[in-house]
Amino acid sequence: MPATTIAAMDQVEMVLDGFFETSCARASGMGRQYGQLWETLKRNTQGGKRFRPRLVMTVFAGLGGTDTYQAAHVAAAFEMLHTALIIHDDVIDHDTRRRGAPNLAGIYQHHARRSGLEPAEAAHRGTSAAIVAGGLALTSTFRLITGAQLPADLQNRMLNLLDEAVFASAGGEILDVEFSAPSAAPALSDVMDMCRLKTAVYSFEAPMRAGALLAGAGEDTAELVGNVGRLTGTAYQLIDDLLGIFGNEAVTGKSTVSDLVEGKYTLLMSYASTTGNWSEIRQLLDQPVFSASHAGAVRMLLESCGARGYVEAQAGRCTRDALELLETSALPEFLTAELSSLLDHAVVRSS
Amino acid sequence: MPATTIAAMDQVEMVLDGFFETSCARASGMGRQYGQLWETLKRNTQGGKRFRPRLVMTVFAGLGGTDTYQAAHVAAAFEMLHTALIIHDDVIDHDTRRRGAPNLAGIYQHHARRSGLEPAEAAHRGTSAAIVAGGLALTSTFRLITGAQLPADLQNRMLNLLDEAVFASAGGEILDVEFSAPSAAPALSDVMDMCRLKTAVYSFEAPMRAGALLAGAGEDTAELVGNVGRLTGTAYQLIDDLLGIFGNEAVTGKSTVSDLVEGKYTLLMSYASTTGNWSEIRQLLDQPVFSASHAGAVRMLLESCGARGYVEAQAGRCTRDALELLETSALPEFLTAELSSLLDHAVVRSS
Repeated sequence: MPATTIAAMDQVEMVLDGFFETSCARASGMGRQYGQLWETLKRNTQGGKRFRPRLVMTVFAGLGGTDTYQAAHVAAAFEMLHTALIIHDDVIDHDTRRRGAPNLAGIYQHHARRSGLEPAEAAHRGTSAAIVAGGLALTSTFRLITGAQLPADLQNRMLNLLDEAVFASAGGEILDVEFSAPSAAPALSDVMDMCRLKTAVYSFEAPMRAGALLAGAGEDTAELVGNVGRLTGTAYQLIDDLLGIFGNEAVTGKSTVSDLVEGKYTLLMSYASTTGNWSEIRQLLDQPVFSASHAGAVRMLLESCGARGYVEAQAGRCTRDALELLETSALPEFLTAELSSLLDHAVVRSS
Repeated sequence: MPATTIAAMDQVEMVLDGFFETSCARASGMGRQYGQLWETLKRNTQGGKRFRPRLVMTVFAGLGGTDTYQAAHVAAAFEMLHTALIIHDDVIDHDTRRRGAPNLAGIYQHHARRSGLEPAEAAHRGTSAAIVAGGLALTSTFRLITGAQLPADLQNRMLNLLDEAVFASAGGEILDVEFSAPSAAPALSDVMDMCRLKTAVYSFEAPMRAGALLAGAGEDTAELVGNVGRLTGTAYQLIDDLLGIFGNEAVTGKSTVSDLVEGKYTLLMSYASTTGNWSEIRQLLDQPVFSASHAGAVRMLLESCGARGYVEAQAGRCTRDALELLETSALPEFLTAELSSLLDHAVVRSS
């Protein structure tokens, strides 16, 4: 990664640090416990890979953007959006840990238990804190944009872009919730849509569009870059789902059993549900105790019915389409190379 | 209420209707279930008293504001903020009904039960939908502001005002959560702060400040009007807490037992906890089955220890301070009369 981008990422950290410093002080002035919520929110935002800010800054620099003060604020806003969405998503998914440590809900649940609350009450305390903190992180994204000192027109485009990202993610999230235990398996195209809405828009398409617009690129270029992002993000999510079932736990750090037990209709499972192997898969998943050998049997059935191959083919198609867009575009060579390497990363993870 | 304000309120309804029409269509295009979420959000926003929009429009008209298109958008934004906060607050308070009907979480919980989910899973489905919908309503407030076609400077002041309102409400909410079962009763001043932060800022102070700024008033006037709002809102909330315990259920439509059972440290309970009656009150509240006669006994103890009188005195002080501010101000007579009548309403409820 070139030196300019590293400096740009330092600037993103400075914006986030300054934002949290101000917010923690402001909250502490309203009550000690409120200051603690912001401190916890700050710690939950640290340690991330800063993937979305990096996309904003890479596209921005790649298209000749120079005012990194403004871009760093928008990049920080996308990081806060990510924080907001994962805090709420973790509640929805019953997750109390993330990145190997208790998440915000988990921390509050733990404290509540230590102060003598019963398990159910303590869990609800964690949920309550997470609902409030997620809402604050969401609002913070807009505050970071208004603090970026952007020209009025560009500010509104950034606010609208954030709104579109939230709108899409919320759609993906509710579809995901509805698909988690539906009476009938959702159509494959609906699952593809959910995948794109829940992750690809806010994690790839919107940050990349933002970077382009901030650099002063025209709508055509912003759309092109956004389309590359959407395709890459969809491929990324499909591969993530595959790794959740077939990945090497030692590499991914995630259990390959828990995704199966959860019983969500990912593209893999939806495809499988249309095949003759489904009744056998369903029977295995419904075992009261789901063992590693059950998981192994499900994996073999998912392979033999063609589900794994189907999802890999879909991910491959998205990747190829993205690459073709890039190759036929008139984007600067440096940016094309950066984005191709991003695509490679998405593909490499699948092997 | 004068005819101009009635017309102004019609305009607020038009803005909300248009906003929901656009959003429902946009969401339906992403998935049938997402369209349903927006339809439910729309129904949950209907039937409110439009109290906050009314404050925006009253102050706006009272200070000579004329562009009702812009003001109606800001007023609608405050209604959406209210929707967002009550959806999340209901989850935190385990409430599945509001205004005599199932709320958003209740509706989703009900559907999930009918589709065969177990009670705990169905409740979680309701919580999940409410988390997503509340986040959407929160983001909508910012979208309504950017759609108001305000001059850049005024738009940013409105965005900041909304941010301040969310920031304060979230602080009040987390203090409320922390005070719901603390090891030691919170200080009286902390409970007063919680009261002000959770309700008075977003329901009174911020909408009234917004109305003033939109009408072109200076910062001094906006601050004065905001201070009147904060005091009125605090009095209103204190009286609401009193009515929750001592009110006439037939008039308030709320159970006077449930607030007691919940065991939250309102100002009333916090004051009582500093008196000699507390051990007896605590003992009654801890009864495994809390009957109407237990509630009657608690009420008598809350009166005899001076807690009811203390809270009434605090509410009275806020009301008097607000009235004094109004009387010594140079606000237009019409607006002073409107705001005094608002104050009267807050006081009348206590008798």
